[in-house]
Amino acid sequence: MNTISSLPENNQLNDLLVNLKDFLKKEIIPHEQNWLKMPWSEVEKEIRTHRDFLKEIGAWNPYLSKNHGGPGYSLMEVAQISEVLGGSFFGHFACNCQAPDAGNIELLLQYANDEQKEKYLFPLLNGEIRSCFSMTEPDNAGSNPILLNTQAKKENGYYIINGRKWFTSSADGASFAIVMAVTNPDAENPYQRASMLLSPTNAPGFNLVRNIPIMGHAGTGWASHSEIIYDNVKIPESDLIGPENQGFKLAQERLGPGRIHHCMRWIGICERAFDLMCQRAATRKTGLKSFLGEKQMVQEMIADSRAEINAARLMVLNAANKMDTLGQKAAALEISTIKFFVAGILHKVLDRAIQVHGALGVTDDTILALYYREERGARIYDGPDEVHKASLARKILQQYGLKVHND
Amino acid sequence: MNTISSLPENNQLNDLLVNLKDFLKKEIIPHEQNWLKMPWSEVEKEIRTHRDFLKEIGAWNPYLSKNHGGPGYSLMEVAQISEVLGGSFFGHFACNCQAPDAGNIELLLQYANDEQKEKYLFPLLNGEIRSCFSMTEPDNAGSNPILLNTQAKKENGYYIINGRKWFTSSADGASFAIVMAVTNPDAENPYQRASMLLSPTNAPGFNLVRNIPIMGHAGTGWASHSEIIYDNVKIPESDLIGPENQGFKLAQERLGPGRIHHCMRWIGICERAFDLMCQRAATRKTGLKSFLGEKQMVQEMIADSRAEINAARLMVLNAANKMDTLGQKAAALEISTIKFFVAGILHKVLDRAIQVHGALGVTDDTILALYYREERGARIYDGPDEVHKASLARKILQQYGLKVHND
Amino acid sequence: MNTISSLPENNQLNDLLVNLKDFLKKEIIPHEQNWLKMPWSEVEKEIRTHRDFLKEIGAWNPYLSKNHGGPGYSLMEVAQISEVLGGSFFGHFACNCQAPDAGNIELLLQYANDEQKEKYLFPLLNGEIRSCFSMTEPDNAGSNPILLNTQAKKENGYYIINGRKWFTSSADGASFAIVMAVTNPDAENPYQRASMLLSPTNAPGFNLVRNIPIMGHAGTGWASHSEIIYDNVKIPESDLIGPENQGFKLAQERLGPGRIHHCMRWIGICERAFDLMCQRAATRKTGLKSFLGEKQMVQEMIADSRAEINAARLMVLNAANKMDTLGQKAAALEISTIKFFVAGILHKVLDRAIQVHGALGVTDDTILALYYREERGARIYDGPDEVHKASLARKILQQYGLKVHND
Amino acid sequence: MNTISSLPENNQLNDLLVNLKDFLKKEIIPHEQNWLKMPWSEVEKEIRTHRDFLKEIGAWNPYLSKNHGGPGYSLMEVAQISEVLGGSFFGHFACNCQAPDAGNIELLLQYANDEQKEKYLFPLLNGEIRSCFSMTEPDNAGSNPILLNTQAKKENGYYIINGRKWFTSSADGASFAIVMAVTNPDAENPYQRASMLLSPTNAPGFNLVRNIPIMGHAGTGWASHSEIIYDNVKIPESDLIGPENQGFKLAQERLGPGRIHHCMRWIGICERAFDLMCQRAATRKTGLKSFLGEKQMVQEMIADSRAEINAARLMVLNAANKMDTLGQKAAALEISTIKFFVAGILHKVLDRAIQVHGALGVTDDTILALYYREERGARIYDGPDEVHKASLARKILQQYGLKVHND
Repeated sequence: MNTISSLPENNQLNDLLVNLKDFLKKEIIPHEQNWLKMPWSEVEKEIRTHRDFLKEIGAWNPYLSKNHGGPGYSLMEVAQISEVLGGSFFGHFACNCQAPDAGNIELLLQYANDEQKEKYLFPLLNGEIRSCFSMTEPDNAGSNPILLNTQAKKENGYYIINGRKWFTSSADGASFAIVMAVTNPDAENPYQRASMLLSPTNAPGFNLVRNIPIMGHAGTGWASHSEIIYDNVKIPESDLIGPENQGFKLAQERLGPGRIHHCMRWIGICERAFDLMCQRAATRKTGLKSFLGEKQMVQEMIADSRAEINAARLMVLNAANKMDTLGQKAAALEISTIKFFVAGILHKVLDRAIQVHGALGVTDDTILALYYREERGARIYDGPDEVHKASLARKILQQYGLKVHND
Repeated sequence: MNTISSLPENNQLNDLLVNLKDFLKKEIIPHEQNWLKMPWSEVEKEIRTHRDFLKEIGAWNPYLSKNHGGPGYSLMEVAQISEVLGGSFFGHFACNCQAPDAGNIELLLQYANDEQKEKYLFPLLNGEIRSCFSMTEPDNAGSNPILLNTQAKKENGYYIINGRKWFTSSADGASFAIVMAVTNPDAENPYQRASMLLSPTNAPGFNLVRNIPIMGHAGTGWASHSEIIYDNVKIPESDLIGPENQGFKLAQERLGPGRIHHCMRWIGICERAFDLMCQRAATRKTGLKSFLGEKQMVQEMIADSRAEINAARLMVLNAANKMDTLGQKAAALEISTIKFFVAGILHKVLDRAIQVHGALGVTDDTILALYYREERGARIYDGPDEVHKASLARKILQQYGLKVHND
Repeated sequence: MNTISSLPENNQLNDLLVNLKDFLKKEIIPHEQNWLKMPWSEVEKEIRTHRDFLKEIGAWNPYLSKNHGGPGYSLMEVAQISEVLGGSFFGHFACNCQAPDAGNIELLLQYANDEQKEKYLFPLLNGEIRSCFSMTEPDNAGSNPILLNTQAKKENGYYIINGRKWFTSSADGASFAIVMAVTNPDAENPYQRASMLLSPTNAPGFNLVRNIPIMGHAGTGWASHSEIIYDNVKIPESDLIGPENQGFKLAQERLGPGRIHHCMRWIGICERAFDLMCQRAATRKTGLKSFLGEKQMVQEMIADSRAEINAARLMVLNAANKMDTLGQKAAALEISTIKFFVAGILHKVLDRAIQVHGALGVTDDTILALYYREERGARIYDGPDEVHKASLARKILQQYGLKVHND
Repeated sequence: MNTISSLPENNQLNDLLVNLKDFLKKEIIPHEQNWLKMPWSEVEKEIRTHRDFLKEIGAWNPYLSKNHGGPGYSLMEVAQISEVLGGSFFGHFACNCQAPDAGNIELLLQYANDEQKEKYLFPLLNGEIRSCFSMTEPDNAGSNPILLNTQAKKENGYYIINGRKWFTSSADGASFAIVMAVTNPDAENPYQRASMLLSPTNAPGFNLVRNIPIMGHAGTGWASHSEIIYDNVKIPESDLIGPENQGFKLAQERLGPGRIHHCMRWIGICERAFDLMCQRAATRKTGLKSFLGEKQMVQEMIADSRAEINAARLMVLNAANKMDTLGQKAAALEISTIKFFVAGILHKVLDRAIQVHGALGVTDDTILALYYREERGARIYDGPDEVHKASLARKILQQYGLKVHND
């Protein structure tokens, strides 16, 4: 059953949230417009000037568990941090908990050997290098593992990787990629065919073909999504991440908390857009004495948005809470649900905020147009809405005795 | 901020919820179809045979506070009871916590004098009589107090009530009405013009004109909504309920918890409809070997419904929790929000459940058609969606400095 | 390509439309509320008092072609008559062009032998008897012919019909049924298994089990939908309608024009609801000086409804025009489309009209609540929306080379 | 009443449409991706290489009336040309009937003096220069004429223009602007305050501040929208366009046909997106043997899109037909309606087409992402949906006796 009650008091967290909001407002949001026009390498330099301060207030690597030297917040607490950081495009990066690095850090913390830790994990934790995660392939539906083409053949203590990936986010400028590749093509269980491998981006045969132009921009650095050709990339056996042929299992484990982070980031975006919408409605004149906010059609957009954002947040916090208390498996339905539910609300809220801004809303004079373009993908990446809906329904119908095959 | 976490353990409540579900399944739901065809007076007799059992398991008057001899559940706990009872059209009535009696009991507990307690409150608490609440008028928009026409003039120690009301639910067979009437038409503050008065239904001049036919049925007894003409109904001054001219304040106080009950009842209906929809999808063949549930369009209806019902429940529990912990005023935005948000979801879920049932869905062979007709009003009564949305938006925009006048 | 231009002038039609509107307004609509409470047999008597007048103005059997003695209107012209008649629940019946009789008349005109004409067709054309069409079965998805269970076995010059049907509309009081039954269960092509047979309703073994209660009412006479058990009903071979085993082909032929009639009737309902909604918005006060129609949320409902009704009408007229000029087959995509498109708009317009009426909208004091209940079925009967959408998409995708199998 | 029937045969038009489709397919669409990356001046050169051919097939200035030397197509015929040209971002420009030039040509044909014709109109008609239309102001709601700030004061035979405009489309590289400016600030009727003036873009004081970045791109040349400061721009009195103080009337006249062009262009975009969506659905594998198009959720997107695009086209053609036959005033409701109705459908179809493309849909590897960004404005420019809906509803409610004041 869904449950809800007062959040347990956590003064440390509350202080952090207040500090982070203040930090974003003063140090990040005023620079957004400029940074969005600069090459990433320069942006990164500017953002990194705040690293010491963020460490000081406990905002650096805020997702880390206590036994890895972090603050040890629960997933439900981490979720609230992610919402606040979602208030700016640069929020997560500033605190070193941006995708895809945060997920890669999780994997390395659990599976990296000492050399890998030295070379990759520690610099990552310190925000000195970046990484990427190379799974999606252009020729195959991402939601269906049977269709993965990239191969890693084992020869003489090496894996030889060949294949084409795209939407390898943040590959441009990254030091290494974690690559999903088929290592056991003949496995009966299609979920036990692939492994995760660590490939340096300067390895011979690692070809970054292009930063894919998305909604008009190819982006640079962390803010880009690359197409990569792996052309006989040679990786020592020791650069396997986790057990062989268990790539999908690891990806799945990585996905649960990742979905919470994503969804809460989206809610942070929603709140930002909602705030802009209300400001506009409250101040834009439509006549000599009348304001946009007096129009009922605008009021309806505000009311619906408020209701839906609140619903979205409660759904995600509830899922996080269930994962915290009962584990990821017990929260499977909830995790499936939030992906499409929150992405849908994000889309609607952004659309309304733009509409209320009128012509200004489609310009880049506000941040809304960026979010509108960037986050159209939210209903697609990590599995399109349709896949999640079908999956959720199948799980439910199974409880009613109907076994629907997954095609 | 919206908050959420594990429900505090309450074994007493958990036991009650289990017992109630079992009771509805065995003793109520199997009789629904028959009862819906019988006159209310006979239905009531049958339902009342379970009174002793329900008292025994702590399900009788379950909303009552400890100092009134009840179990003393918090509003958030009461909400969960209301959801379970919402699983049948007769659920709340069985436990003596149906509208409008539950709200009237609240008023009498607080304001009744000894004679009123003896004559009305105690029989109500024991399920021996019924009552009604007479506020809405056919000629005036219910959401605007300035427009109330019914007058109660004070003369020689009596109020003389004149006016026309409708949607006085459950008046047919009730022992008394609590009537909202203007007692101070000249008050500057329009919210301080009306009072609540207790009128026996057998008082001279209390004319029950008709049970209004609603969606094809006039109904009888508790399951009806009457039109009443108050024609010089004479009420002793002592039958004022609460302070004079404070009728709207009392109505408002009554409304907060009432909205929680309503919304959770709707969620109970949603769960019932969802269950029927899934059963149908899992068992109805569309071909020799294919089932309705294998169709993605059906799956989408199931997934969207699951997500939305979960969201609705969390929204209501969150509002209840806020009322429990911070008071009704602090939860004003949340209470405004749940009314339209949950009513909208109720409507969508019922519509989908009918659609998945095909031709069967519009027949009375399932309970869905009843809910579809009966609950179309949910988006209208207690203030139509549009009024709540505008009100919520105005409250929000006020925080942004825009004062929108309420017309 | 979709085409459009000025309607050719047809003064005869224009006069008829004007006369019919006037007739409905004066002679039918004022009686609706009473008639809806009376048993059908009495209603029918009252309506039939207008037969001579309607014959006189050319409104009796207005769908009939010239070579059958009718006015010979094109389908596009007939469509406009159907819209006007749709303005009242009793409109089509008054002019003897109501479903299911109009479709049965078409079948008999084409296939009846002399005896059948004498006994059934001529009385039908004169409005002296009624008929029904018995196809849908409770245990089978109506949209899938493979699943038809009712059998008609040929023995010694007779068909012996056995099976269970429901939603045999207007069976109560009808003189005969046209029954769809499997006559060749082993045919390879499942569309060539069934035939249409004419069964008198007083034939031994024709058991009208019940008028199915739909949305709270079982109805009577023409305004009812029955469940029928065919228990060894014996029909002479000569009462086959059309060629043997071609039942689905005939049903399909009957369906094309039938869909135009239905859709235009719905548009007539939409216009009625729209008119009520606007009247309400223009006259209902929400404050001392303010009207409902000044609220933007109400304005949006009006504007969206106007746009959608116009779109619906153009879609249906365009489909009718294509059928008139290029034939039913060429208009297949258009006919698939209008069913779900118009039914969806009907549903939305009725819902909005009720919402604008507030509490009044759910009462039977306006006609809206009747339509809301009765026409929920519009998105289900003659194939649910989902079936039509899937069918349309499959036809389109076939043009792109994808053969989607129909399950 | 809405009317519809077969299009009158027009072989000349039909040939043109076929030729244009072929031309776009072979000469324009293959270059789109390149051209979108090039500065406009270079694109223009390439497109202009086709001018002679387009003149030859009768596609150059296809909107021109016979008495101006054009083909003299009716608005309903022109609409069909606009749909075909809408199939490419560069379609209208190729044929010299792009906004804002087409509208400016109309104005000059009617109002230009000989000098203006020589200097501006003839080069425009020959595609040698470009122009812009300067009306919208950043500080004022575009839909409310009372709020126009830009002033043109008459002094010594000159107008002195001062003010700030934005969304002056295609100003970058244009030879002149037609500017809307207040010439009679004290006029009682606010619709008679402004005039249209012709200002060369190289006039002293005409400052093109910036091409406004819109959805990530500032654009160049014709494909841009500028912010302009008019700083004491001095215009001879003779460069008034049309009668003084009648600017709004002229703008209104220009708007009617312009809306038809826009809406049909959007339908052209819809058809392009629909085609891409179907191609994708028919060819993209989701499993070893299964295709995207077999999924019902995809089928629903296709079916809904097909229905809605057809509806949109019929609505626009019907409005055009009414303007052709009864005049712009008689078609006022229809013109109000199509703006929001078609823009809404455009938005939905683009969104679905992207969703069906998955990750590919957000990249610039298809044209969809461009349209998604560019055409978000369709629901805003020329009056946001909300303004049109309110306006339509007000006009309707006036017929019911309610005078809603326009604020």
